[in-house]
Amino acid sequence: MSRSAPDGPAAARSPMTNPHADRVRAVRALGTRSGRRRAGRYPVEGPQAVRELVRWAPRTIRDVYLTPEAAGRYAEILADAEAAGLRVHLGDAAVLEAMSPDAQGVLAVADLPEAAREAARDEVPVGPLGAAALDAVLAARPRLVAVLAQVRDPGNAGTVIRVADAAGADAVVVAGDSVETTNPKVVRSTAGSLYHLPVVSGVPVADAVAALRRAGLAVLAADGTGDLDLDDLQDAAAVAGAAGAPGAGAPDARADLRAPTAWLFGNEAWGLPPEDRDRADAVVRVPLRGRAESLNLGTAAAVCLYASSRAHR
Amino acid sequence: MSRSAPDGPAAARSPMTNPHADRVRAVRALGTRSGRRRAGRYPVEGPQAVRELVRWAPRTIRDVYLTPEAAGRYAEILADAEAAGLRVHLGDAAVLEAMSPDAQGVLAVADLPEAAREAARDEVPVGPLGAAALDAVLAARPRLVAVLAQVRDPGNAGTVIRVADAAGADAVVVAGDSVETTNPKVVRSTAGSLYHLPVVSGVPVADAVAALRRAGLAVLAADGTGDLDLDDLQDAAAVAGAAGAPGAGAPDARADLRAPTAWLFGNEAWGLPPEDRDRADAVVRVPLRGRAESLNLGTAAAVCLYASSRAHR
Repeated sequence: MSRSAPDGPAAARSPMTNPHADRVRAVRALGTRSGRRRAGRYPVEGPQAVRELVRWAPRTIRDVYLTPEAAGRYAEILADAEAAGLRVHLGDAAVLEAMSPDAQGVLAVADLPEAAREAARDEVPVGPLGAAALDAVLAARPRLVAVLAQVRDPGNAGTVIRVADAAGADAVVVAGDSVETTNPKVVRSTAGSLYHLPVVSGVPVADAVAALRRAGLAVLAADGTGDLDLDDLQDAAAVAGAAGAPGAGAPDARADLRAPTAWLFGNEAWGLPPEDRDRADAVVRVPLRGRAESLNLGTAAAVCLYASSRAHR
Repeated sequence: MSRSAPDGPAAARSPMTNPHADRVRAVRALGTRSGRRRAGRYPVEGPQAVRELVRWAPRTIRDVYLTPEAAGRYAEILADAEAAGLRVHLGDAAVLEAMSPDAQGVLAVADLPEAAREAARDEVPVGPLGAAALDAVLAARPRLVAVLAQVRDPGNAGTVIRVADAAGADAVVVAGDSVETTNPKVVRSTAGSLYHLPVVSGVPVADAVAALRRAGLAVLAADGTGDLDLDDLQDAAAVAGAAGAPGAGAPDARADLRAPTAWLFGNEAWGLPPEDRDRADAVVRVPLRGRAESLNLGTAAAVCLYASSRAHR
């Protein structure tokens, strides 16, 4: 087997060794938002995210890069990528490091979702493709959806996508003027969950709430100012569930945790603005038992989404 | 009232304007671990953390710095600080920015806790003062304690301290070779919770677990490999609670959520090592309903601690 065979198994080829090569520069350019919009592609960094990308969304992948060491250590990524017919390239540690300091020896380049590409053309972050994607999600009759409104911090957005996946949510809507879901920090902090459930962006908060409600979901805003206490809702759902009487015992018909539910979470710093709280069927607070004034976004979402998923069992 | 009166109200004095002054350099030097150890002090940055520090731990404070704008905007901090007899200094925006880019116009300098100071002298992160602090916590008969084992990321450590406070935990033990709790990123991410409940550090994991068990707490390790499912424990606690029969219905006598409980959480990247899992009375997994392989540390702690606090009501 020739070491330079262009279509041979990656492991048989020589690794790229020039960190200044055009291909390396082109990947590194995807680290910025403008670079991603120009190329219509985004980088997926690190073994965990790339493994899930290769497993769940291989048709969006343009190229996979691994160091020889990573190709040995993460043999399942290499095997899955080659089984999917993907273009796999070896590069030495300096090449992968030059592509991204967060690659940890493994990086893939994938196409931006259609909505993001359309947005890049128009320079308008909201478009019909976002609404169409949401309609497709709603057609599958979801029972638990997380909606992020104006979330700006990529780590927080990724954490919520990851915990929504873990709690068994059917979709996440990253609504309004939120961070882009293909931001590399979002991708990394989802730990692969970005490829596990539909994540819809490019829809204004008002439109997302209206569509979710039309689809029969109760919309609950999570906010420290809420007049309903999550503990009370959980107690009511447990009592009603034990009694086998649907709806009985719920403290508020707008907020029966056993019903299909969309949770609306606000910005990490300033929460939900009044107009977004007013869009919800009810505003629910997580009980604060100590002296803390609030929870951060990820932990609040964890408690709310797990409460719903328990009630849905 | 003289503009230079050294003991007059801060608002009546001229602000410091020299970002190169010795005092400013001395504060900035607290941004590094070695600087903090040398000085025996640490910086508390931002209005939220400083407000809680002034309110709950004023005797540990050496100095408070505010911009004139922040002194107006956060008048309650200024009032509380002056009521406590603290030394309050005004500095212009350039001075506060030079002290710390994360000050947002408000910064305090506080004494390191005794344990940290002792550790700084000895260059040994574990000392008798840690154990003594833990003994004091245990003498108050806590019902819910979070233990962090080898947690290195300051944001994660701070998030767990904050959610432990919110869930009504009685204390947090930052055990073993974890990040120092006076690291500025830890302080910021606790959002003031560092001053709301005892946070003990400088105790090896084995010693912390042994002391907690002697004090009558069940020690539950949170880990994805756990043979017990948190959902089952919550169901059993709810059934037993409804029946009024203590202990009845619990799936495992080692893990009755209604009992006083210490949760043991591992490192954000590699979890709990086997030897730490083995120290626990039981290993409990948070159910993963979607395709996620795991939760991150903060969200896992949120779900576990809120499950306990519900069972304790």
